[in-house]
Amino acid sequence: MGVSVVEPCIDDVRRIGESCSNWGRWGTDDELGTLNLITPESVRAGAATVELGEVISLGLPYNSAGPQTGGFGRFNPIHMMIRDGNDALAGTTPRDFYKGRDAYIRSADDIIIMPLQCGTQWDALSHIMYDGTMYNGIPASEISSLGARKSDITVAQDKMTGRGVLLDIARWRGVDSLEPGFVIGRAELEGCAAAQGTEVRAGDFVLVRTGQVGEVRRRGAWEDYAGGDAPGLGLSAPEWLHEHDVAGVATDTWGMEVLPNETKDVFQPLHIILIVYMGLWVGEIFDLEGLGTRCAEIGRREFLFSAPPLPITYAVGSPVNPQVVL
Amino acid sequence: MGVSVVEPCIDDVRRIGESCSNWGRWGTDDELGTLNLITPESVRAGAATVELGEVISLGLPYNSAGPQTGGFGRFNPIHMMIRDGNDALAGTTPRDFYKGRDAYIRSADDIIIMPLQCGTQWDALSHIMYDGTMYNGIPASEISSLGARKSDITVAQDKMTGRGVLLDIARWRGVDSLEPGFVIGRAELEGCAAAQGTEVRAGDFVLVRTGQVGEVRRRGAWEDYAGGDAPGLGLSAPEWLHEHDVAGVATDTWGMEVLPNETKDVFQPLHIILIVYMGLWVGEIFDLEGLGTRCAEIGRREFLFSAPPLPITYAVGSPVNPQVVL
Amino acid sequence: MGVSVVEPCIDDVRRIGESCSNWGRWGTDDELGTLNLITPESVRAGAATVELGEVISLGLPYNSAGPQTGGFGRFNPIHMMIRDGNDALAGTTPRDFYKGRDAYIRSADDIIIMPLQCGTQWDALSHIMYDGTMYNGIPASEISSLGARKSDITVAQDKMTGRGVLLDIARWRGVDSLEPGFVIGRAELEGCAAAQGTEVRAGDFVLVRTGQVGEVRRRGAWEDYAGGDAPGLGLSAPEWLHEHDVAGVATDTWGMEVLPNETKDVFQPLHIILIVYMGLWVGEIFDLEGLGTRCAEIGRREFLFSAPPLPITYAVGSPVNPQVVL
Amino acid sequence: MGVSVVEPCIDDVRRIGESCSNWGRWGTDDELGTLNLITPESVRAGAATVELGEVISLGLPYNSAGPQTGGFGRFNPIHMMIRDGNDALAGTTPRDFYKGRDAYIRSADDIIIMPLQCGTQWDALSHIMYDGTMYNGIPASEISSLGARKSDITVAQDKMTGRGVLLDIARWRGVDSLEPGFVIGRAELEGCAAAQGTEVRAGDFVLVRTGQVGEVRRRGAWEDYAGGDAPGLGLSAPEWLHEHDVAGVATDTWGMEVLPNETKDVFQPLHIILIVYMGLWVGEIFDLEGLGTRCAEIGRREFLFSAPPLPITYAVGSPVNPQVVL
Repeated sequence: MGVSVVEPCIDDVRRIGESCSNWGRWGTDDELGTLNLITPESVRAGAATVELGEVISLGLPYNSAGPQTGGFGRFNPIHMMIRDGNDALAGTTPRDFYKGRDAYIRSADDIIIMPLQCGTQWDALSHIMYDGTMYNGIPASEISSLGARKSDITVAQDKMTGRGVLLDIARWRGVDSLEPGFVIGRAELEGCAAAQGTEVRAGDFVLVRTGQVGEVRRRGAWEDYAGGDAPGLGLSAPEWLHEHDVAGVATDTWGMEVLPNETKDVFQPLHIILIVYMGLWVGEIFDLEGLGTRCAEIGRREFLFSAPPLPITYAVGSPVNPQVVL
Repeated sequence: MGVSVVEPCIDDVRRIGESCSNWGRWGTDDELGTLNLITPESVRAGAATVELGEVISLGLPYNSAGPQTGGFGRFNPIHMMIRDGNDALAGTTPRDFYKGRDAYIRSADDIIIMPLQCGTQWDALSHIMYDGTMYNGIPASEISSLGARKSDITVAQDKMTGRGVLLDIARWRGVDSLEPGFVIGRAELEGCAAAQGTEVRAGDFVLVRTGQVGEVRRRGAWEDYAGGDAPGLGLSAPEWLHEHDVAGVATDTWGMEVLPNETKDVFQPLHIILIVYMGLWVGEIFDLEGLGTRCAEIGRREFLFSAPPLPITYAVGSPVNPQVVL
Repeated sequence: MGVSVVEPCIDDVRRIGESCSNWGRWGTDDELGTLNLITPESVRAGAATVELGEVISLGLPYNSAGPQTGGFGRFNPIHMMIRDGNDALAGTTPRDFYKGRDAYIRSADDIIIMPLQCGTQWDALSHIMYDGTMYNGIPASEISSLGARKSDITVAQDKMTGRGVLLDIARWRGVDSLEPGFVIGRAELEGCAAAQGTEVRAGDFVLVRTGQVGEVRRRGAWEDYAGGDAPGLGLSAPEWLHEHDVAGVATDTWGMEVLPNETKDVFQPLHIILIVYMGLWVGEIFDLEGLGTRCAEIGRREFLFSAPPLPITYAVGSPVNPQVVL
Repeated sequence: MGVSVVEPCIDDVRRIGESCSNWGRWGTDDELGTLNLITPESVRAGAATVELGEVISLGLPYNSAGPQTGGFGRFNPIHMMIRDGNDALAGTTPRDFYKGRDAYIRSADDIIIMPLQCGTQWDALSHIMYDGTMYNGIPASEISSLGARKSDITVAQDKMTGRGVLLDIARWRGVDSLEPGFVIGRAELEGCAAAQGTEVRAGDFVLVRTGQVGEVRRRGAWEDYAGGDAPGLGLSAPEWLHEHDVAGVATDTWGMEVLPNETKDVFQPLHIILIVYMGLWVGEIFDLEGLGTRCAEIGRREFLFSAPPLPITYAVGSPVNPQVVL
């Protein structure tokens, strides 16, 4: 099924969404979406890829120098100390913390204030709504000021480990970083997988590298990384992802899909198709630079992937420090 | 090396600490401590244990019903919505978030305010100081209001995956939950490992189950879980852990070590020995109930373990959702 | 107009509300409610009472030992240092804060995380809704996750100064503190004003002392101060307040009105009548102990009152440090 | 006592500071500084100026569009809803908040996360340290991660009401806004007071208008308002303020004093002189535009001033909504 020749619009989004829909596939009450595709077999397949015993983190540091500039009400993490080493040295830590004893021990503690989607992150399925519902027809009203009573991030608590693959589109195209606006569609996904000898299986986590985090690093500034033009998945990608029954997809960009969007009347149409219609788990702001380089060196892009979200009750997303084991 | 017969005190803590010290072992600048013991081999050994393809999370949910009651300035997580489904339905989400377009899509976002050690957690080595320094002689003054400039949690960003073992002390003792004050020393660690056929190797993550989280669940209340009396590691445990060169140790209790402490003049003496002297990574408030049960069923307590902390710059700890793969 | 003899219910609430309604009185777009009653004359009248030049604060300290216990999602203030004196002494404050200079100067900064209604506070008119609207028929949907786009606290930015009077009901009744459940109705308000020689005028801020803060102080614990049984205004009070055209009313209790409520089917019925129907500004958790004592000493209970809220955009309430000048 | 002709430096700061010092003036334990100068007489004098019954707020709104850009770790206020009107309409507010009753009433609540000095504010005397101490020789170590155990903002809880005067320097100079770098010294303070017929008395709050907030409004952007070049008080101002025994001084700029500073080796030298040596209370980011205009119209710049800080325990500053009554 293709996309309108002249100008894709909401009708195309709906049509593609319906063709890829997983509503009802795992029951009318399902809140897990494509994480249902994680199976003992896919987990074993992930573990079986481990040869080198190398671990690579795909997480960017969480700090005040992050990418956020206020869009969507998001801000960079605010980290504060409850007490610290200077207090310990000055002797101003309350002794009652130490049960009134002479308190040879001293400790430091800290807090974080952060939007759950301010950095490397998973979207919960409750992050996106279309036409009054989230995935599987769950009413948007399930997400109140208390958070998401359905399909919150906790449903994925033990579901984010399995087989992962890297589709290094930037390297396949021979560039350091794809240009903003570059559309990664079915052709690019297929072409890259074929050229890089990567087999995509049901239940896989598919990591799509555009090189954008590397670009940010080279220029030394986030600039409009959060919300600005970017390379990313396009309207012909969902059906490919659906055919392969992948469990999750993650990119090194702010928003996973191409910006400007191919649709003029819909912002982030793939969020509607992938998250609302398919119930597909989407990761964003993953740092794929080190992984891309190492995979190229070893000539293998299949690995064990483990990216457990924090099980924050009612949350619609979570920061994450994804691990790849090669 | 033993412990004073009559009444252990700070002198014993110091003596044991020195006998187990890893200061300088990995260089005078080392900030990693026992995570240096993670090797490609230990990671491969972890992956090699995977047979069933089952994943078990050891993370407790983060929410306002957590264990904290204010001690050490800690509080339970505060989760707030930036915008939600009810806003989407009411049409009061600002359209400019969606680039001024007709905005078929709607989204929810949220923030968290939480002490980094309010639930399932890793202590960074900078969490504990003794005599003005943290592990490896790094001055306490490196931990200011800005956080820890040395040995913060980010050093462990790609170091928390490897081989894990469970020492199910409660099950070995034939109880649902060990009593508060029960000391887990060298004899208990050795006895349990032998009885349960668990081999502890260098670079392993050792999970020690007391059953206390199960006890909390049965009684339906945290009560004094945070800071009150508890079963836990005692003064003869460090040397055993040191001899086995484990990479990390985690328990299902608030504070890993036995309370009341064996030392009357020192609060939490093992925090001094393990964290400051040994540079050993300590996990707390891990939920080991499901893991204990499943391991008993399958008769195996060795597994792949992956518990990546959030790489929060300058942080002295991190929430974590640890994963075990069987 | 009276209250049903047997058992007041929502019908009585509605009837009383309608009899006291100020909807439309100051225009269909009005967001100020009874603060319209503040006039140059009432402000001058307040200033004219000043004789002694004494200032009394009615604010309770904001800190972690406050009254909140989690009800309504409220918690006590969390105060954290951005940097402090120990950092200054240790020399770990970044020099770039001081423009790279030798930085003889050092500074401390801090943040607060607090519910706006966790202590001494004003309710904005947008704090309470009934039947889908707030005061003056403004739809509840004007209050989204972004806050209140209508009748937020900022409308009162320059409106909280004027003439104030104290009705010291506890002292009038000859008790330290009124009992929980004690109803302050028309008879009590009239009786107390008459006995204490207090004239209540249009545009006044009326402070009603129950003695409950003193009771908390005597027992040394908040206990169920927040949300538990309390003395307070009853169903016959609104018409008296309406007849006197007061600008605001504040008490030394958590919730201004009597608990248990006189209505079995409606929680906090006076919040509906006073805030939604009348648009009356309500203050809570005011500390009236010192004021009560001093007024008794000087035999005067009329004064200049100034209690400016923080003009937090879209906020539905504000902490406040009210000042009385005698 | 003057200032070095060629290039003022830390020696001048020290010399001026010592000549103006109030250390020990009100006792060796004093934490109040110049607020000791507030007297019943000065309060009465303030109240006596009231003629018009007009109230003007000097507070800028607290919201995400404030002046902060990260300097000194400060950020703009983050306001979040605990629950809102859309929740009420959707029926997703938990009924147990309303004691299980049919809950005709609905409410909205909110929280704020804000640096205490992110907008219109008072500095507590513990905000600034020099040479290891704050005002009156109190050691900097009294300010730990717990906050200021001495001279915190709560000491001013009932001390910020009295007589206020406006020195409208911008209007006196015939400009909308003074240029960045414009030094307001003794000559300017004296000249403006004389020309505008303003008498400055002991115990007064002196408001110094540069017009900078108006400039921000005209250009529609804060730009470098927070920390950038600005008009402000210079090194010859402290002695004038000291001679007049003023209780507090506030400006419409970020940092009260001229930037670039007159001293090349000391950042913000007047903070050292005024706050540390004199114990003078300093207000910043006051909006003096409306006040300046109205005072010019009525030809009077003396008034009742009331600017109560929030009594946040251990805080080194406070947001404030200052009120002027004309």
